[in-house]
Order: sequence, then structure tokens, then C-alpha cells
Amino acid sequence: MASLAEQLKADTVGWTKPQRVALVIQYIGTRFHGWQRQPQQRTVQGEIEAVIEMVLGYFVTLHGAGRTDAGVHAAAQVAHFDAPTTIPAHRWASILNHRLSADIVIRASAQVSNTWHAQFSAQWRRYRYSLYTDPCPNLFVQPYTWHYYYEPLDVERLQAALAPLVGHHDLTAFHRAGSGRGHSRVEVQAADCYRQESFIHVELQASGFLYGMVRLIMGLLVDVGCGSLTVDAFTQIWQRQQRERVKYSAPAHGLCLLRVGYPEFPFASHLWFDTQPRFCFAATTDLVAV
Amino acid sequence: MASLAEQLKADTVGWTKPQRVALVIQYIGTRFHGWQRQPQQRTVQGEIEAVIEMVLGYFVTLHGAGRTDAGVHAAAQVAHFDAPTTIPAHRWASILNHRLSADIVIRASAQVSNTWHAQFSAQWRRYRYSLYTDPCPNLFVQPYTWHYYYEPLDVERLQAALAPLVGHHDLTAFHRAGSGRGHSRVEVQAADCYRQESFIHVELQASGFLYGMVRLIMGLLVDVGCGSLTVDAFTQIWQRQQRERVKYSAPAHGLCLLRVGYPEFPFASHLWFDTQPRFCFAATTDLVAV
Repeated sequence: MASLAEQLKADTVGWTKPQRVALVIQYIGTRFHGWQRQPQQRTVQGEIEAVIEMVLGYFVTLHGAGRTDAGVHAAAQVAHFDAPTTIPAHRWASILNHRLSADIVIRASAQVSNTWHAQFSAQWRRYRYSLYTDPCPNLFVQPYTWHYYYEPLDVERLQAALAPLVGHHDLTAFHRAGSGRGHSRVEVQAADCYRQESFIHVELQASGFLYGMVRLIMGLLVDVGCGSLTVDAFTQIWQRQQRERVKYSAPAHGLCLLRVGYPEFPFASHLWFDTQPRFCFAATTDLVAV
Repeated sequence: MASLAEQLKADTVGWTKPQRVALVIQYIGTRFHGWQRQPQQRTVQGEIEAVIEMVLGYFVTLHGAGRTDAGVHAAAQVAHFDAPTTIPAHRWASILNHRLSADIVIRASAQVSNTWHAQFSAQWRRYRYSLYTDPCPNLFVQPYTWHYYYEPLDVERLQAALAPLVGHHDLTAFHRAGSGRGHSRVEVQAADCYRQESFIHVELQASGFLYGMVRLIMGLLVDVGCGSLTVDAFTQIWQRQQRERVKYSAPAHGLCLLRVGYPEFPFASHLWFDTQPRFCFAATTDLVAV
């Protein structure tokens, strides 16, 4: 700590423009009140900012690619902050990890140009929502999945309901109040659904996401999957902006911010691409006999 | 609760021999001081016994197939207790789950004969120890793996060191003090090692396990894997019962009691067989395109 403070002092004396440091951040959302800093609440942004302040001796804002709600996980959230050039940017990951609690890890840090911005330079975000359909509860998957075993879900129906979402749309029907955002138009770039053993995963990629959007989509989508709502009725609800017909928000813990896309990104793909594993039960899955 | 108490009362009046109820139990060991009941400590046996007592109104002992240490997980521990016949045995799973905390789940309950015993009827136990070898930490796998990225591990060397362990042996070298067991002879039935993506899994199956055995084997085995100990030296250490040369015990959180084998077992295999998933990162793994 002392050496960092000394480095900083030297840096302040011979003042240069600070470098911009980008972070790839993983967190288990269970014990956080979401990403965004809030007074009296444990949040991811708040906790990392506090640790950066501990290191630098002064506060800097950590800009995230997007907010996640309380309980939502992140496989590879992205954020940036401005720091003195005396600390090599790639060292910030280990400097912060030594001081962060066990449910946050910085997977990598790197210098980016001073015009690069974690939120505004991002072209898309991708979320995964995971359902576990086996009737018997399993603790190993429970923190990361919605245990949905009430009725069987038809993946083809889910896919049929998701397909029309791709494109530029007003998704007022899937927009929770309280975000402060003036409109509900988004560009959905991908809306995929696939079965993997007892799991059903839905992945949504969009230029940006509305407050509560994925969980509201999932809450209505399971009605399509179990047959209590037709695909056409699902589509009409959001096309006609019938927010009042979208009553249920799927649980936060099934949701994970999977990745964020940038035209220029300083990180190797294995550091940020699909770092949320899938859980595999089939005994023969992917084993390499040596 | 009231109805259970009434059922119990009725049962006490017309006294019959209690039925024996077997349980398949999953737990995340992180916040437990192991299986065995201890005063002033949170243990799995203690917590389930307390809940059974809450339901029955009196204490009964829960007999487990084996003890697990503090921090060790169980995918399918097995236990039994004796309960009045008025509560159908298959209902005990949900009765207990409604009252147990979030890191224990009873996957199934069933009646067994009154001579069946969770510990003494068991023919073997199987443990899995998991290593995660990617240099970058990953929170999703961290609670269940030893993050071993110090040197590369050669799986063929691990397999060569494990193979001679199969058979009847005195494994004093891998026997921690304090178990109260008089001897160190065990029958190892299987000692497998395999790589799966960035993971290395070691599975040991034996008639019974000595106190600390798997973690002591793993602590020494990584020296073989990284080349600092030869396969022959590893074998000599345990064959010559050189307990003092086995210095390191691998961390508890990489270990999981995978399953317990019985000649007669009332549970369907999907309820107890390999309920600890493997974590799969490869994007194409086992996805079923519908």
C-alpha cells in the first residue's frame, strides 16, 4: 500500500494525464443490491470504488457497461476508471483482487484510450437466463437457475415466441418503471433458446436493455412454453405495448450478464467470452480419455 | 406442524414398530463444520436432527454413511433414522426441505427394512476431487475446486501414481490423527483421474475412507503431477507408511462425497448418481439444437 501511495505522490508532482483502465469483472449477485452504487447498500460498483479509493487515496468513479439488478450475476461485466499512469494498467486486476471480497473478481485489467468508454463505446450486451427443469432440487445449480418444474416447457414454442423480438422495437411491455429512461426502443440482435440436459437457456443480445426487460420477458415466456399463452398472444402483448398484461418478473438469480461487445476491446477472448459455465450432468460429457 | 404432531400422537397411542427412513442428502459444505454433530458448531447432522426433532417432538439420531470434514461438499450423502409409521416415508423429503436452510436439500426419502443401515450396509463410498487449472480465477467454479495454476499438471503421471492404490492396502501415510479408528487398512476399488477442459478430476472409490485420506493423497499427488516427485517415490511413501513425508492436505472445498453404494438401495439412480455437475465452458458442449 505504501509503495502505491508513494508512486501516486510522485505522479501528482509530475502531473500527467491519467490513463484509462478497463476491467473485466465477474460477480455472484446473490449478496449484492445490484451493480449501482447506493447509500447504505452493498453494491458491486460501490465495493470496487471503495477499494480503488483505498489504493489511490482519493475517489474516482467506476463507469460500468450497464447496471444489473439485485441478485443478478455477471460473467464478464465491463467497467473503466481513470488512474495515474505510475501503476501499470495490467496490475490493477491483482491489486484490486487482493482487497475485494470473495464474490467479486477482476478477471483482467488493461489500458484503453482516453476516448474509450465502458458504457458509451459498447455496441451490445448479452444476457443468459437459465431454467432448471428437473423436479428434484439440486444445490449446485440452484444459485444460478430458476427451478421451473411446474409444467414441461416446449423449447420450440419458446423459440417461436422469441424470434419476432429480433429487430428494432418499442418494448414498453417489458419495461419496468423507475429507470429514468425516456423511451423503450431497443435493437434486439439475437434471441436464442436451447435445451441442454435438464436446463433451458435463453440468450438475449441487444444494443441496450430496458430496466427489468429480460426478467419480464422470461416471466411471460414460460406461459408460452407451458402452453397457457399462444405464441401470437405473446407477440401481440409486446407489439401492442400492453405492459399491464406482463405481470410476472422471473427471479433475478437465473439471470447473468454474459458479455459486452465493443469495436475495440483490449482483452483476449478467454478472459471475457462465456465465463459462466454450463452445468453438465451427463456422465460422458466432454471427458478426454488420456 | 399441528397435523404431524397429531399424527404422531395417534401413532404413540397405538404403538407400532417405527419405520426406518433413508435419505439422500445434498449439501454445500462451505458454511458447515462438517457432517458430524458437535456442540456449538453448525453441522449437517446436527441441523437435520434438529429439524426432525422439531417435526416429531422428540430427538432421534440420524445415522450417516460417512462423515465429511468442514468445508467438504456432498452430492449424495446417505443417512437413515427411525420414525413413526404414520408419516409416509416418501413425504419426509419435502417435510424436512421446508424447514432446512438453503445449503442442505433432501433429494429423496424412502422406507428401508429395519436391518438396513446407512453406514454398515454401505459397500463403498466414492469421492471426487476437482482442480481448476486456468490461471484466471472464476467465481462460478471457485467454491467447488482447488484453483491450482502454479505449474502445469501431467494427467498421465497422476494416473500412473493413482493406479497402484487400487487394492487392499495399509494407507497409514494418508491417515490423519484424531479419527479414533484403530487401523489404516482400506480397500481402494477405483482411483481414476481425467481431464475435462481446464479441470482435472480425481475420483476415488473405497470400501471406507480414512480421516483426511483424499485430501492428503491430493496434496501429495500434485507434486507428482508437476514433476517435483516421481511416481515411484509417491508409491514408496505410502507403501513404507511414511506419514511424515505427507505434509500437505489439499483444500476441503475441492472435495465432494459423490455417492455411496449399497446392495439394496430404494432410490432411482437419477436421485443419487453424479448429482454434482461438471462445469463446461466449451461453447459447443452438449447443446441440443431443436
